[in-house]
Amino acid sequence: MAKFIVIGERIHCISPVIKKAMDERDPAPILKRAKEQLDAGADYLDVNIGPAEKGGDELMKWAVQLLQSEFDGVPLCLDTANRRAIEAGISVYDRSKGKPIVNSADAGDRIENIDLAAANDAVCLALCSKAGVPSDNDERMGYCQELLERGMSLGMDPDDIWFDPLFLVIKGMQDKQMEMLEFIRMLSDMGLKSTGGLSNVSNMMPKNIRPIMDSAMAAMAICMGLTSAIVNPCDLRLMETVRSCDVIRNNTLYADSYLEL
Amino acid sequence: MAKFIVIGERIHCISPVIKKAMDERDPAPILKRAKEQLDAGADYLDVNIGPAEKGGDELMKWAVQLLQSEFDGVPLCLDTANRRAIEAGISVYDRSKGKPIVNSADAGDRIENIDLAAANDAVCLALCSKAGVPSDNDERMGYCQELLERGMSLGMDPDDIWFDPLFLVIKGMQDKQMEMLEFIRMLSDMGLKSTGGLSNVSNMMPKNIRPIMDSAMAAMAICMGLTSAIVNPCDLRLMETVRSCDVIRNNTLYADSYLEL
Repeated sequence: MAKFIVIGERIHCISPVIKKAMDERDPAPILKRAKEQLDAGADYLDVNIGPAEKGGDELMKWAVQLLQSEFDGVPLCLDTANRRAIEAGISVYDRSKGKPIVNSADAGDRIENIDLAAANDAVCLALCSKAGVPSDNDERMGYCQELLERGMSLGMDPDDIWFDPLFLVIKGMQDKQMEMLEFIRMLSDMGLKSTGGLSNVSNMMPKNIRPIMDSAMAAMAICMGLTSAIVNPCDLRLMETVRSCDVIRNNTLYADSYLEL
Repeated sequence: MAKFIVIGERIHCISPVIKKAMDERDPAPILKRAKEQLDAGADYLDVNIGPAEKGGDELMKWAVQLLQSEFDGVPLCLDTANRRAIEAGISVYDRSKGKPIVNSADAGDRIENIDLAAANDAVCLALCSKAGVPSDNDERMGYCQELLERGMSLGMDPDDIWFDPLFLVIKGMQDKQMEMLEFIRMLSDMGLKSTGGLSNVSNMMPKNIRPIMDSAMAAMAICMGLTSAIVNPCDLRLMETVRSCDVIRNNTLYADSYLEL
């Protein structure tokens, strides 16, 4: 069993500080957040430049080179709706610590991102959705099969497609949580890898509650076989939970110091 | 779905303070611990008087009446190897808030505690073990079936047998944790109720780690369908986790104040 993979979500243009730094090509704020996340235990860093319709390719290249040169080839997740920007990022990407992750394909408008990942020997994050939230697991599984077949027909290793079950917000979709968790188990039973924006479950909850709810969801999802998540690694409670679950799943050997390793 | 049931474990003669209070029939220390656990959200209180070979029946009667008169018929889990003491406790038990729990039967020397529970319309905690730790889930399931059939043949409702999968200590049996969790899922798939000494998993770990590991295990076990556990309800992190999992499982409706309810 492999260790659970944490993708740090905090380099995101939705943050005004990061947006400004990206616009001005100012390395300091971006490197600061990268370091915080890596120190906290992130395995990958997500780099979300937004839609980036103008100049996205130059921006992604700049961000990839900045982060990988400063942090010894840290593996990255290239996150934008601009396909050319993802390709530009991959063109300068250092693979010494792992393949780039294309974030993301789905079974709808973004299905061609599977092709992009296949053509560039990248990992592809594949949302099991088409337009909006899938209504049940049959629908999720249909999209999963479609994405899997497309990737495999293009020569991809199934291990390079990380399926996103779509974590749903509890405030509004409380009764859908267990079905989503069952879908993770279905993916796991098929031997497929999975990831997703886990903290979406606690969206709109009070700030003090979010780490508590996210941790509970993380443990449940890891129990069902989730192999990765896109989260805030600076959430200490969440990271303690992930590490404890890795011990319980026997992914890492227990030592009294396991939380510090 | 019913709310997860927390059985408070802290009235236990292994504690010198409680042992002394039991020996001297001193109510104060016992009531203090009972109140702490109930305030923290315990649904049942376990009353462990140890082997109690001499005078166990009088002691259990005293403890049951003391706790139930002070805390408005709080439901109790009668925990001792002395069968006569359990019967004595039941003879004075107030059922207004729920049946007493016999703690515990197993498929070995203690199998007659199923008969005792059946004869007294009590809930029976049933360990899926015979002599020592079961080597795998086939063995666990064999004992489960034996206990279930015995109880049902005596007229028990299957809901009144709470099966204990035997939580195992991680330090020594790290590689057995997921199989134990899978057994909880098997029980759940059969529609059976379950409980157990969950904090056994973190036995011998540093004190600061235990709530972290216990919480991770609790979330994983509840995800697999565990319906109850015998734990320390004064462990705030654990209780926060249990309440969050109850929200995720849709056992309780989410409100921003759900942690305080």
